[in-house]
Amino acid sequence: MAGALQISFAPMKATVIVELKPSVLDPQGKAIQHSLRTLGFDGVEDVRAGKLFRITLADSEQPRAELEKQVRQMCERLLANTIIENFSYTLEE
Amino acid sequence: MAGALQISFAPMKATVIVELKPSVLDPQGKAIQHSLRTLGFDGVEDVRAGKLFRITLADSEQPRAELEKQVRQMCERLLANTIIENFSYTLEE
Repeated sequence: MAGALQISFAPMKATVIVELKPSVLDPQGKAIQHSLRTLGFDGVEDVRAGKLFRITLADSEQPRAELEKQVRQMCERLLANTIIENFSYTLEE
Repeated sequence: MAGALQISFAPMKATVIVELKPSVLDPQGKAIQHSLRTLGFDGVEDVRAGKLFRITLADSEQPRAELEKQVRQMCERLLANTIIENFSYTLEE
């Protein structure tokens, strides 16, 4: 500690959004759109439903680029079905 | 048209995020966290799952404040269960 350069690593928070590709039908979104219209919200032209994940990553000394790579892998391997879904993510402390 | 002040109203896009309140258990998030660890992502400390809706609102001459009010009502009446969920939204053209 004494005299050493101290860098603090706060836990990083990743926010991942997974959405159906625009060309893929979204029956859940259509059902919500219909329900909103039934409730009187006439101006609703379209609804698309998606998923959002807030991921807390432990303190680590990994560079940001490495963390981003990990989050991308999480999306590709588990969180998104890349055949029919797109994903995007942001990383913040 | 001729000589008249023309204001164009593009369709507005609302993005709504619905998430469980922090005090509410999230079994789906826990299952995803467990799966990510099993896949070798050891740094994952927590996962919370939420929902995202992209709502296209028809061209209208309503002021932005009125549209925001409508989106808030959609959240309160259909999209979110405000007993256990928080919601947030953004509006853009």
